[in-house]
Amino acid sequence: MSAAASTLDQQALADKAQLKIEKRKRFEQVFPLLVDELTSYLASENMPAEAIEWFKRNLNYNTPGGKLNRGLSVVDTVEILLCTDNATGKLTRSLTEPEYLKAAILGWCIELLQAYFLVADDMMDQSITRRGQPCWYKVEGVANIAINDAFMLEAAIYFLLKKHFRADPYYGMLLELFHDVTFQTELGQLIDLITAPEDSVDLSKFSLQKHHLIVVYKTAYYSFYLPVALAMRMAGVTDDALYQKALDILLPMGEYFQVQDDYLDCYGTPEQIGKIGTDIVDNKCSWNINVALQNATPEQRAVLDSCYGRKDADAEAQVKQIYNQPNIDIKSRFERYEKESYDHITGLIDALPESQGLRRDVFRAFLDKVYKRSK
Amino acid sequence: MSAAASTLDQQALADKAQLKIEKRKRFEQVFPLLVDELTSYLASENMPAEAIEWFKRNLNYNTPGGKLNRGLSVVDTVEILLCTDNATGKLTRSLTEPEYLKAAILGWCIELLQAYFLVADDMMDQSITRRGQPCWYKVEGVANIAINDAFMLEAAIYFLLKKHFRADPYYGMLLELFHDVTFQTELGQLIDLITAPEDSVDLSKFSLQKHHLIVVYKTAYYSFYLPVALAMRMAGVTDDALYQKALDILLPMGEYFQVQDDYLDCYGTPEQIGKIGTDIVDNKCSWNINVALQNATPEQRAVLDSCYGRKDADAEAQVKQIYNQPNIDIKSRFERYEKESYDHITGLIDALPESQGLRRDVFRAFLDKVYKRSK
Repeated sequence: MSAAASTLDQQALADKAQLKIEKRKRFEQVFPLLVDELTSYLASENMPAEAIEWFKRNLNYNTPGGKLNRGLSVVDTVEILLCTDNATGKLTRSLTEPEYLKAAILGWCIELLQAYFLVADDMMDQSITRRGQPCWYKVEGVANIAINDAFMLEAAIYFLLKKHFRADPYYGMLLELFHDVTFQTELGQLIDLITAPEDSVDLSKFSLQKHHLIVVYKTAYYSFYLPVALAMRMAGVTDDALYQKALDILLPMGEYFQVQDDYLDCYGTPEQIGKIGTDIVDNKCSWNINVALQNATPEQRAVLDSCYGRKDADAEAQVKQIYNQPNIDIKSRFERYEKESYDHITGLIDALPESQGLRRDVFRAFLDKVYKRSK
Repeated sequence: MSAAASTLDQQALADKAQLKIEKRKRFEQVFPLLVDELTSYLASENMPAEAIEWFKRNLNYNTPGGKLNRGLSVVDTVEILLCTDNATGKLTRSLTEPEYLKAAILGWCIELLQAYFLVADDMMDQSITRRGQPCWYKVEGVANIAINDAFMLEAAIYFLLKKHFRADPYYGMLLELFHDVTFQTELGQLIDLITAPEDSVDLSKFSLQKHHLIVVYKTAYYSFYLPVALAMRMAGVTDDALYQKALDILLPMGEYFQVQDDYLDCYGTPEQIGKIGTDIVDNKCSWNINVALQNATPEQRAVLDSCYGRKDADAEAQVKQIYNQPNIDIKSRFERYEKESYDHITGLIDALPESQGLRRDVFRAFLDKVYKRSK
């Protein structure tokens, strides 16, 4: 490779990284406006100053601060759907300011939904930190009030949708999307909670089928389908069959994302994943353990039964050793799964008809974000 | 009074009581159908049997079993609005079976909303029992999973509304009513939680204004306005001004109901209220303490400051003694408040125009249920 080409490549990468930072910054600037709208509503209802201050702190502590992938995906998808020229397949304009604002509000509504789930999940899992700060319920003076605070994060979604989308013909569909996906996510959380309680290990409850259900319901619907489906509604797509096609691509993509997450919890470096994995000691119903269980000899199974989910570094090391045995070999199986999954999803995207209001780029952009994200 | 008249009166009372029992029974028979619809949905999504069983138990443990006043009020109101003859003001028919079913489903949706709040409130208040059984989070094996269970009770509302009302022109208004009232109730709960935390007594945070906000937001919207507003939507009332009129009557009625509840916590017999009142030891921001604070001398105030909210029968007795001092005299003040409130609400009802689709009987039936309910 010539030095000139390499410099050009580096420049292109730097430009892409810069664009990503700017996109994120613009999106982040919308949130304070929404906090103002919410607190103004409380003020208009004569709520006491302490209550307004409390709600504001709840919103600001729990909603921004993550990767914002879900929210940003709504904006990216709306842009692709509204601004692509059908003949050339290229973006020919940017979103107008009002279009941008509406897409960003839908994005923030997903981030609020996530905040609602995470505040509650952290309480249910008795977690200590989240995004490098104490979990909300661990903050001085909050404790169990966090339950009502989680409720209020959810209520904020419907307040914002009513304020900004009430006059739009797709308003009702936005409400139903949030209702449906919320219920599905709660179902995923329920299966997870009763399959893998932290304090009672029973590997006979685990299976790849359960793992599939947990990841699809607990993660894929709200993190993968919801951003695209909201954007499609805003872009005026009304054909139910297209929503089904989006689902058929995005649920497998979400499942792949979570399997990768499970794999990296054990095989990623702390630099790659930004934390030290604890799935084995926490008795998580992860992809790794389910693959191991499916392939283990009776002797290996006995080791897994006695060592999985124990708060004990030795036991954890024994589980990892089983993962690396030749007949199990999680690493190779993951690489095979990853390739098959990528090919499958790419095939689905390539087969998508573009004439009816959906675009392959929507899914390609999403796949770029998640595939081999830590390499 | 003649013996014959007295026998007739007794007969009328017995008939009325019997009718009430039958109404309740018919309403209760609808709930298992809704549980079937919800669990069938889970089965159709291939949820594991344990998850279906868990959700069913959550629904059945937490939703029926209360007084069902809110749910029954929807049915009563729909009946008055749809079946009253305009000329005579008398009921001329009963609800058809499909009308009854829809009204009852809306009623059960309010009971689900209440279940959602109560499961969470019990966790936040660290309560032990509810309706004569352990609180849900206290049941063996439930614990913090109750947070997700509360979420799922709420999700059930939107599932049922979608299933049964999606084709109706007022479907969107039902969704917004539930969203708006849910947010308002959570605001009331927030003010209550930060004004009167059980473990930190600070009477300077209390005021009759705060008490007013707490009872209106935490109770009156969902228990008084919501049943009537849902029924009005189902009956086809679209004029916003009529919803405002309903609100103007029902919020004061809800406030009166809660003041009475607060009063009886201290002055009702255990037979009247079905429990032994604990508002004083629990540091509740009740009507009694706020009236006492407003009228106390500095010496009385000092006693209240040192004795309110203590887990101590002596301290409780001292607070009660202050309540009975001649310059405070909660009993007389309550009787005066009760009379004024009753006259005010009756005046509002009498001033209601009946020609536009609302009927005074809706509010009279409600007032009958709450006024002097324990005498």
